[in-house]
Amino acid sequence: MGAVKSKRVPRAVREQQMLDAAVLTFARRGYSAASMDEIAEAAGVSKPLVYLYLNSKEDLFSTVIRRESEALVAAVAAAVEPGATADRQLWSGLKGFFAHTAAHPHGWAVLHQQARTHGEPFTREVAAMRAEIIAFVTKLIGAAAKETGCVGELAEREVAGLAHALVGAAESLAEWVNVRADEGTSGEREHPSAKDTAATMMNFVWAGLGRLTEGGRWAPDGLAGQESASGVRR
Amino acid sequence: MGAVKSKRVPRAVREQQMLDAAVLTFARRGYSAASMDEIAEAAGVSKPLVYLYLNSKEDLFSTVIRRESEALVAAVAAAVEPGATADRQLWSGLKGFFAHTAAHPHGWAVLHQQARTHGEPFTREVAAMRAEIIAFVTKLIGAAAKETGCVGELAEREVAGLAHALVGAAESLAEWVNVRADEGTSGEREHPSAKDTAATMMNFVWAGLGRLTEGGRWAPDGLAGQESASGVRR
Repeated sequence: MGAVKSKRVPRAVREQQMLDAAVLTFARRGYSAASMDEIAEAAGVSKPLVYLYLNSKEDLFSTVIRRESEALVAAVAAAVEPGATADRQLWSGLKGFFAHTAAHPHGWAVLHQQARTHGEPFTREVAAMRAEIIAFVTKLIGAAAKETGCVGELAEREVAGLAHALVGAAESLAEWVNVRADEGTSGEREHPSAKDTAATMMNFVWAGLGRLTEGGRWAPDGLAGQESASGVRR
Repeated sequence: MGAVKSKRVPRAVREQQMLDAAVLTFARRGYSAASMDEIAEAAGVSKPLVYLYLNSKEDLFSTVIRRESEALVAAVAAAVEPGATADRQLWSGLKGFFAHTAAHPHGWAVLHQQARTHGEPFTREVAAMRAEIIAFVTKLIGAAAKETGCVGELAEREVAGLAHALVGAAESLAEWVNVRADEGTSGEREHPSAKDTAATMMNFVWAGLGRLTEGGRWAPDGLAGQESASGVRR
């Protein structure tokens, strides 16, 4: 790869290659330990070219965070079934979230583990993305309460708290699933599908542990046979 | 404070003062930006004394993480009602968790935001603490399933996933509550009590959003009047 330095590769393509290499390096080594040398080598370009295109390690990290944030938000937004009931929107959004974080484990590691702790402006970028997802979930919980005729019953503050709890739960679960996948593929440690992980989340957030331990289950509307959550009941 | 350098302060006391100052500095500035000068100044001692007692910034950070982890785990363990039903144990443990994280916002910020991203051995320390809490929650969910006669119904893997989701939810909620508290004390942004936050979590994890939006509530056994979750229904 080191030999590929042809001028014929368009700048936009080259930049994406550098960002891919940067995501991998930041995720594996951490922001502080990652070096521009390493990133350049992983991208198969010279270090001066990385500086020329992306300016500095700080700027590179910012660009990575923005790209990965936008990709994650776009994946969730694209997955949500518009016009569906609140629980189905949540279910489809969660499937999108877990599919994306499983397919982009390094991007997710950068957002979840690296970007939140290295001060401004990185923290702000991730906080903005997180706020967008939380606002969406808050709206869904509000809509769900309304659908079941429970307007005004859940105080605004509690709805916001529930949304933060739900997003934290999904983040934690996504991290766990990726770490398990990283640890190998022995029978015990296979990577659950995004759908299974989303089903675990829906059972948790929708049915609740109380109902769940009594054998109750959340299931997508009218799809109990074909698309039931039973895949996780092994 | 800078003048107090008397040899008469016992080493153990002096060390705790240094650790208190370090927690504050790491939480506010981040691990990378925090300097030993700043920590020494906040502790009211000379920098050489900090090095003498706690060796290096790395060792100081490790010691801080260990102290804060142990304090958090001890607070949760002490709060849990032994021998109670699983939901009551969870409820009391959550109250302990939210009370401790609210009372020690800087310690919590170090554990939740700083310690997980600066590589070994810090990551390992926090992971060990988190694993301990997750193991406890996993046991509780298993016990709850058993209490309701649902043995074998929840697969082991799903119980572990639920425990990770629950712990992630509690972490996210604790962070949110502390950030709100940090942002001031206007009417809109008052700090909810640990009990209210724990009630939000129990409603979320036990009743589930589905039941919650239908007006269902989790309430501690037999205490619906005196110790009901209605405090969060404003």
